Amino acid sequence: MSLLKLNITISLDGYVAGPNQSVTDPLGEGGEKLHEWAFAVRTFRERHGMEGGATGPDDDIAAEYFQNIGATIMGRHMFGGGDGPWGNNPWNGWWGDNPPFHMPVFVLTHHARDPLEMQGETIFHFLTEGIHAALEQAKDAARGKDVNLGGGANVAQQYLMASLIDEMDIHVVPVFLGDGTRLFENTDGRQTNYECIRVVNSPTVSHYKYRSRSSRGAN
Amino acid sequence: MSLLKLNITISLDGYVAGPNQSVTDPLGEGGEKLHEWAFAVRTFRERHGMEGGATGPDDDIAAEYFQNIGATIMGRHMFGGGDGPWGNNPWNGWWGDNPPFHMPVFVLTHHARDPLEMQGETIFHFLTEGIHAALEQAKDAARGKDVNLGGGANVAQQYLMASLIDEMDIHVVPVFLGDGTRLFENTDGRQTNYECIRVVNSPTVSHYKYRSRSSRGAN
Repeated sequence: MSLLKLNITISLDGYVAGPNQSVTDPLGEGGEKLHEWAFAVRTFRERHGMEGGATGPDDDIAAEYFQNIGATIMGRHMFGGGDGPWGNNPWNGWWGDNPPFHMPVFVLTHHARDPLEMQGETIFHFLTEGIHAALEQAKDAARGKDVNLGGGANVAQQYLMASLIDEMDIHVVPVFLGDGTRLFENTDGRQTNYECIRVVNSPTVSHYKYRSRSSRGAN
Repeated sequence: MSLLKLNITISLDGYVAGPNQSVTDPLGEGGEKLHEWAFAVRTFRERHGMEGGATGPDDDIAAEYFQNIGATIMGRHMFGGGDGPWGNNPWNGWWGDNPPFHMPVFVLTHHARDPLEMQGETIFHFLTEGIHAALEQAKDAARGKDVNLGGGANVAQQYLMASLIDEMDIHVVPVFLGDGTRLFENTDGRQTNYECIRVVNSPTVSHYKYRSRSSRGAN
């Protein structure tokens, strides 16, 4: 059985991105601070084609991030900023020539676009039929493995509202962004259906794993 | 020099109290889950006149809560629910005959009331002149020690907006309340002026200490 797992980092005041997000500043002011822990660890660096990196609890969590994951879903802004039609010569997104996914990635968008094949087995598929259809296609592509939901907040909220998320890995970084995009907003309180099943801490980030009380994957 | 220290517990989705707060349910639905860690440790139990309780990191944090604190400020709802004039035979609040403070407590209210002296050196003073006057009186009463700001959210937000908080001890419990009263709302992002100077974790709660970058107490 394939699970849908949200995996996302927030600030202590609850934001996944800072204020004044734009095409040139996709994480908003201060938003890059949320991801310093990930770029510091060996697993993420390896997947990004970079050398070095720390081992330890944060790296163990990062390694788990990719375990048994066969496909990823993300919103358009997480693929690469901007709105509206893609145009004739569209950009290939934030993730570089060799994106860290190494699996099929399903990008939710209102505008159709041909699949984009990158190095290292990452293929971006652009889906315009909404979250249910995207999840179905992602699960097919995952071939029995789980599906990662990377964000951003809007897509996470849609899946949470539809009670489609089985597990949430929420990484809390003790910085404040003060404004921006909150994860737990417009969710009608659906997060109360999740219980914390594990906490792993390091000095720079706390990793909380939640499981849906109604998930078919729940014990 | 006397510092103002906010000391407050929030859920992972950022709430200090759950939805549907009322006089009979002052913490709102689910809100009591935020305080289970405190009622489990020896220091809080002792101050409440209860026996037993765990030692360990959470208890160390609870002990620190009261170190060098000479006065406490809180909002009226934290003293004891309800709004409007106190009436002729007002209630003595949530905290019982022997409140855990054992120090002067300054309650911010719009309605005057005579001071209320309880067992164990707790005296509740009811102040109607606003946050600046309350802080001044609390610092006088603290005689060089620090002043604890206990909450609730509205009072904390007022002091944060006025840049009067020197340190924040924020305890994060990995439950979701889904709705209710958020700590970091209506703060105009002032929390970004604070940096995390310490994290202490236990399986049930993460304790984050922040210091104002502009506090006179900052190094």
